[in-house]
Amino acid sequence: MSEKLCFASDYMEGAHPAIMRRLLETNLEHTAGYGLDEYSESAREKIRAACQVPEADIYFLVGGTQTNATVLGALLRPWQGVVAADTGHIAVHEAGAIEFGGHKVLTLPQKDGKLSAEAIARCVDTYRKDETRDHMVMPGTVYLSQPTEYGTLYSLAELEAISAVCRGAGMRLYVDGARLAYALATPENDVTLPDLARLCDAFYIGGTKCGALLGEAVVFPRPDVAPHFFTIVKQHGALLAKGRVAGIQFDTLFTDGLYDAIGKSAVEAADRIRAALDAKGYIQPFVAPTNQVFVALDPEKAEALSRRVEMGFWENLPDGRVVMRLATSWATTGKDVGALIEAL
Amino acid sequence: MSEKLCFASDYMEGAHPAIMRRLLETNLEHTAGYGLDEYSESAREKIRAACQVPEADIYFLVGGTQTNATVLGALLRPWQGVVAADTGHIAVHEAGAIEFGGHKVLTLPQKDGKLSAEAIARCVDTYRKDETRDHMVMPGTVYLSQPTEYGTLYSLAELEAISAVCRGAGMRLYVDGARLAYALATPENDVTLPDLARLCDAFYIGGTKCGALLGEAVVFPRPDVAPHFFTIVKQHGALLAKGRVAGIQFDTLFTDGLYDAIGKSAVEAADRIRAALDAKGYIQPFVAPTNQVFVALDPEKAEALSRRVEMGFWENLPDGRVVMRLATSWATTGKDVGALIEAL
Amino acid sequence: MSEKLCFASDYMEGAHPAIMRRLLETNLEHTAGYGLDEYSESAREKIRAACQVPEADIYFLVGGTQTNATVLGALLRPWQGVVAADTGHIAVHEAGAIEFGGHKVLTLPQKDGKLSAEAIARCVDTYRKDETRDHMVMPGTVYLSQPTEYGTLYSLAELEAISAVCRGAGMRLYVDGARLAYALATPENDVTLPDLARLCDAFYIGGTKCGALLGEAVVFPRPDVAPHFFTIVKQHGALLAKGRVAGIQFDTLFTDGLYDAIGKSAVEAADRIRAALDAKGYIQPFVAPTNQVFVALDPEKAEALSRRVEMGFWENLPDGRVVMRLATSWATTGKDVGALIEAL
Amino acid sequence: MSEKLCFASDYMEGAHPAIMRRLLETNLEHTAGYGLDEYSESAREKIRAACQVPEADIYFLVGGTQTNATVLGALLRPWQGVVAADTGHIAVHEAGAIEFGGHKVLTLPQKDGKLSAEAIARCVDTYRKDETRDHMVMPGTVYLSQPTEYGTLYSLAELEAISAVCRGAGMRLYVDGARLAYALATPENDVTLPDLARLCDAFYIGGTKCGALLGEAVVFPRPDVAPHFFTIVKQHGALLAKGRVAGIQFDTLFTDGLYDAIGKSAVEAADRIRAALDAKGYIQPFVAPTNQVFVALDPEKAEALSRRVEMGFWENLPDGRVVMRLATSWATTGKDVGALIEAL
Repeated sequence: MSEKLCFASDYMEGAHPAIMRRLLETNLEHTAGYGLDEYSESAREKIRAACQVPEADIYFLVGGTQTNATVLGALLRPWQGVVAADTGHIAVHEAGAIEFGGHKVLTLPQKDGKLSAEAIARCVDTYRKDETRDHMVMPGTVYLSQPTEYGTLYSLAELEAISAVCRGAGMRLYVDGARLAYALATPENDVTLPDLARLCDAFYIGGTKCGALLGEAVVFPRPDVAPHFFTIVKQHGALLAKGRVAGIQFDTLFTDGLYDAIGKSAVEAADRIRAALDAKGYIQPFVAPTNQVFVALDPEKAEALSRRVEMGFWENLPDGRVVMRLATSWATTGKDVGALIEAL
Repeated sequence: MSEKLCFASDYMEGAHPAIMRRLLETNLEHTAGYGLDEYSESAREKIRAACQVPEADIYFLVGGTQTNATVLGALLRPWQGVVAADTGHIAVHEAGAIEFGGHKVLTLPQKDGKLSAEAIARCVDTYRKDETRDHMVMPGTVYLSQPTEYGTLYSLAELEAISAVCRGAGMRLYVDGARLAYALATPENDVTLPDLARLCDAFYIGGTKCGALLGEAVVFPRPDVAPHFFTIVKQHGALLAKGRVAGIQFDTLFTDGLYDAIGKSAVEAADRIRAALDAKGYIQPFVAPTNQVFVALDPEKAEALSRRVEMGFWENLPDGRVVMRLATSWATTGKDVGALIEAL
Repeated sequence: MSEKLCFASDYMEGAHPAIMRRLLETNLEHTAGYGLDEYSESAREKIRAACQVPEADIYFLVGGTQTNATVLGALLRPWQGVVAADTGHIAVHEAGAIEFGGHKVLTLPQKDGKLSAEAIARCVDTYRKDETRDHMVMPGTVYLSQPTEYGTLYSLAELEAISAVCRGAGMRLYVDGARLAYALATPENDVTLPDLARLCDAFYIGGTKCGALLGEAVVFPRPDVAPHFFTIVKQHGALLAKGRVAGIQFDTLFTDGLYDAIGKSAVEAADRIRAALDAKGYIQPFVAPTNQVFVALDPEKAEALSRRVEMGFWENLPDGRVVMRLATSWATTGKDVGALIEAL
Repeated sequence: MSEKLCFASDYMEGAHPAIMRRLLETNLEHTAGYGLDEYSESAREKIRAACQVPEADIYFLVGGTQTNATVLGALLRPWQGVVAADTGHIAVHEAGAIEFGGHKVLTLPQKDGKLSAEAIARCVDTYRKDETRDHMVMPGTVYLSQPTEYGTLYSLAELEAISAVCRGAGMRLYVDGARLAYALATPENDVTLPDLARLCDAFYIGGTKCGALLGEAVVFPRPDVAPHFFTIVKQHGALLAKGRVAGIQFDTLFTDGLYDAIGKSAVEAADRIRAALDAKGYIQPFVAPTNQVFVALDPEKAEALSRRVEMGFWENLPDGRVVMRLATSWATTGKDVGALIEAL
C-alpha cells in the first residue's frame, strides 16, 4: 500500500478486474473439484483454439517454479537433465526445485538471456562424442523462457532452429511462458501460440504475472508426451482442490482477447518509458522490448529515484553504475507512466 | 452448475462472500510479493493471537498435499520416516508426495481414522528394541489429521498422550488441519488452537476446505523447528508470487470470528442431517461429529438418492451396502438441508 | 573369529575358495574398467546360457539393497510404486532406499513370506475401481524374493500365476534372488533360471550370500526394459571401477556348476539340521526348505544354545518362546553340522 | 589382458599382492557382518592413528561416486547445495548422483582443477548479498579433490585458507581422496592426513584407485557431523554385508606403511615418465606432480603411440593436438616404464 509509483514487478496487485468480476459471479455455483469443472474445460477449449491444436492436453497449475518442476519431472527420465541458460529461472531462482526432483540442470552460457541453437547443438555433440558419456547426465530436454529473464525474445527463426536441433537429437523442448502475454504483445515478436504449439513439446502460458491472481496453463500440444500427468501434478502438490479458481481465470483471460489486451497495454506503457529514457539520455543496457525496462543509473541517481519509484534491483555494473528494472502490467496506468517519466 | 443438491464435498464452491469482498476491495493495492505484504503479516498476527503463541512462525501455502510434503520435508531428516494411520491422507491420497520427497510413510492400523498413543509408543519401542533398527527407517515425526479422514476427532486427552509419547521419544508431532474449522466448531471438541500450539511441533489451519478459495496456514509454534523454511517452500513450488492472495483470505478468516462461524454453520447443518438420518432409521457406520456425515445405504437406495443429491462414495460394506458421504460447508443453506432431509 | 559354531548367517566368511583362487590367478592382468572386461563378458555369456536367453542384458552390482533400489528406480515411472509383501526386504530392512529414490512401497499381507497372485490381482483391481485412483500411487512393478525372507519358495505354478497377473495388468515383475542358489538347489523347487527369465522382467542372481565376496548379477531377459541402465547404475553409486571383481566371481560361480554346488551343499546341511530338530522334537514354525532353518525355543534353551552356537534372532512368539534362525552356506562343514546336532 | 603397455588408469588390475594375501589368509574365518568385524575395527584404529584423531568416526564404503553421494547426502540440508569446481568429479562424471539425492552442485570456475579460497569466499559473499537469496540454493558444503581430477595438489596454505573460509561461513569442507595415496607420496606435497583431519569436516581415503580391489574409507574427524550415518549408508545401498572385504583391505593398507609405499612407487614411476617427456621435448600441458602424466601430442603421434601403449584420452586442444593421460599405480613396473620411455 505504498504511495510510491509502483514499477517493482508485474505481480504487485490482485487480478485484472474482469477476472475478479467473473470469480465473483460464479462464486456460489457448485462445480466438480480438481480441474474437472466446466470452467476449466471451457478454458482448455479456448486455449486449444488459440494454439490451433484441438488435441492438446492442458493442465492448470498454480505458480511458475511449481510448473517447471512438475513438467520437467514428467518429461525427464532418470538419466537425463535439462539444458538451460545459466541465467535461466530454473538454474538460479527456484531454490533447487529441479534437483529436489532428482535432475541436473545443465547450464550453457547465454547472450541477452538466450540460448542459441548452435550452443545447444554443440552441447549435444560434445556429449555424444565423449567416451565417458555413460558416466554423465544426458541432455534430455531444453528449457527456454519466452520472454527471457532479461525481457528479451526468441525470434521465430531462432525458435525453429532450436526446435530442429532438439528433434534431431531426440530431445524435448519446453518453454517457460511466465510472462508470455508480454511476448505475444510485443510489436517485434513473430512467435505466436500456434508456433509454440508446433515447435515445443510442452510450454506454459503464464497467468500469475499476466493478470491472474495465480495460475499457469501447461500445454502439451501432442498427447502422450507426459503420461499420468494428473497424478504427477498431485504428487508435486500442484493440484488445486478448487481447480475452478485457475479455470475461471484462464477462461476469462482467453475470452474477448483479454490475454492479448493485458500484454498490449503493459508493453505500450513500457515502450513509453523506454522512449522517455532514450530521450533523456539514459542508458538501457539490454535490448528488452517486452514489459521489463532496464536502465543503468549512477548510484546517487538510483537512490534518489528509488525514493519516489518502486523498482527492482537488477545488478551492479563493473563501472559502479547499477542496473534497475522497471516492470509494467495491466495495473500500470497512463498516469503512473506520466508521473514516472516526470520523475526521471 | 448441477441442479442436484450438492453435498459432494466442502470445496465445490468459491470462497465465503466475506473473503471475496475483501479480495475485491484490496485488488488494486500494490503490495510486496511472496507473502511479505502487510495482509499476510496481519493474518500472521491474528493467528498468533488465536493460538496464543506470539513467537510462532507462520507461512501460507496453497493446498493440503503440498503443505504436508513441504512441512514433512522440513521436519524429517534423511534417516527418518513419518508415522501415520494407514488411512491417513499422506498414506493413501497424495500420490506418493512424501516418498517423492525421499521419505517413507510408516503406517499403523487405525480405529475410526485415529492413531492411539499406545500404538505409537509400541511402534517406537519395537523400533528401538530391534537389533536391525539401523537398517530400518526411524520413526521421526507423527502425522495426525484433526478431524481425521473419517470426520472423527482426537480428544484433548488423546492428543496430550500422543504429544507426550512423541516428546518422550524425541519425535515431532504434526497435525494436518485441512478441515480444522469443523473440528474447532464441533460441540464435543475439547482441542483448541492454543492446545494444538502447545502440543504440536507444526500444524496447519486449513483454508481451502474451510471457506477460502485456497490456502493453508502452517504454524510452527516454536521457532527454529524448521530452519530456512521459506527456501524449502520455494523449492517445493509452494511459494505464491502474489502471497497476498492467501494472506488476505486468512486475514479475513481470522477477523470477527469468521473461521469459527464457518465451522459452526457447517457442523450445525451436519448435525441436522445426522439427526434426521437417525430419526428415519438410517445407519451411520462411523461416529463422525464434524461436517462429514456417513450413511450406509442399500445399493438401490444409494442410486435413487444419487439422482437427486450429489454425495461422495466412501466404501462398499461386506454385506453389500454402500457407505456414502455427505459433506456440509459455509455454502450449505438451511434450505438445502431441508430439501435433503425430505429426499431421504 | 569366534570359536562358537557359526550358523549366524550366510555372509560370515570370505568367498568360496575357487573364487579366491581365480581372483588371485588373474590379479596382475590388465583389463578394462567398469564391467567392460572380458571376465565380466564371459560371466554374462555363461549366465545367458544358464538362463537360456541369449539376448539378455546383464549387469553386475555390489549388494542387494543397492540392486533393488537401482533396478526398481529403472523400472518404475514417477507415478508408480512397487508392490511387495509387508515382510519384503525392500519394505523393512533397506532403510527406506526405495523411498529415497522417490517411490512408494505398496505393501500387501503375506503368508510364509509370500504374496499370492490373488492378492496382487485384488490390489490392482481395487486400484482400478477406485474413483480417486489418480490421486494414488499406481502399482507398477511387483517385487518378490526367491527364496523369501522366511526361506520359503514360490512354486512354478505360483510364479506363473503371478507373472500372468502382472502381464495382464501391464505391470513388471522383479525377483530378488539374494539367496537364489539355495532356492535352485532345494529338492522341492521347480523354478529354474530359464523359468525366471521367461516369467520376470528383471531378477538378480545373488552372489554375496551365495559364496562370493560381494556381487549380484542383474538379468533383464528382454532388452529395452531398462534403457540407459549403465548410467542409472552409475547414478546410484553402484558401478565398480574394477568391475572385474564382480565379473571374475560370477564367471567362476557359473563355471563347472559351482553356483549349483554351493546351493546344494548348504541345503543338504540345512536338511540334516531340520531332520535332527524333528527327531529331537523341536518345533520349526515355518516350512522353510532352503538354507535357513527356523526353530522355536524356550528362552532358557535359546540362551543356553547361544553360548555354543551363533544363531540369528528371528522373533518372539506370543507364548513366550523365541524363534531363532540357523543359516548354512558353502562354509558350513559336515563337522560343524554334527557338532550343532550334538549341541541341540 | 592386452599385450600393450598399460598406462590407461590406476584401476586396471586387481589388488596389491599384500592385500590379496591377507584376504586369502582370513578367508575362512567367521566374522560379524556390515563392518562390525574386528578387521574393520582394526583398520579404523590404524586410520585414526594415522590421522591423529582418536575420536574420528570411520566408515568403509565401496566406490567413489557412492561415497560422494552418501557423504554429501548426510552433510547437506534440504536448502543447501555443494560448491565444486566445474571440473569436479561430482559435477561431471557421476551421472547426476548428487542431484538424484536432491541437491544442486554449485559450480565455480577452476584453475588446474582447483578452487581458490577467494573464489569460494566470493561465492558466499554474492549469495549473502543477493536480496533474492532465499529463492536460491545456499552453499552448504565445499567439495575438493586431493589430488584433483587434473592430478594437481592443494598446498597446505591453500587448504588452510579454504578451510578458514568454510568455517567463517558456517560451511562444511569435504575432500574427495580417491587418489589420496598419490598426493601423500608426492615430494612437493605438504598436506598430511592429520592436516586433512584438522581442516575438513569429512574426507575419504581412496582404496579402489590406490591398490585395493575396492573400498573407500570415510573419515569424520569430529563425531556428530553426520548423525545416523550407518543408516544413510544403508539407504544409499552402500553397506557391504561382508564389510570385512573393505576392512581387511584397509587394515592391510595401513599396516607397515603399505598405503604410503603404493603411492610412492607410482609417483616415482610418473616422475620418470615426466622427466623423459621433458628430455624428449614433449609438452606437458598441466603441472601434475602425482601419478597422472598429461602430454600434448599431434594426432598422428597419439595414434601411433596408442598402438603400443594404453593411455586415456583427455581432451582436444584448440591447435589440433590431443592431450593424453598416462597413469601409474602399484602395478606399474620399472620395466613397463622403461618400455614406455623407449616407445615415446
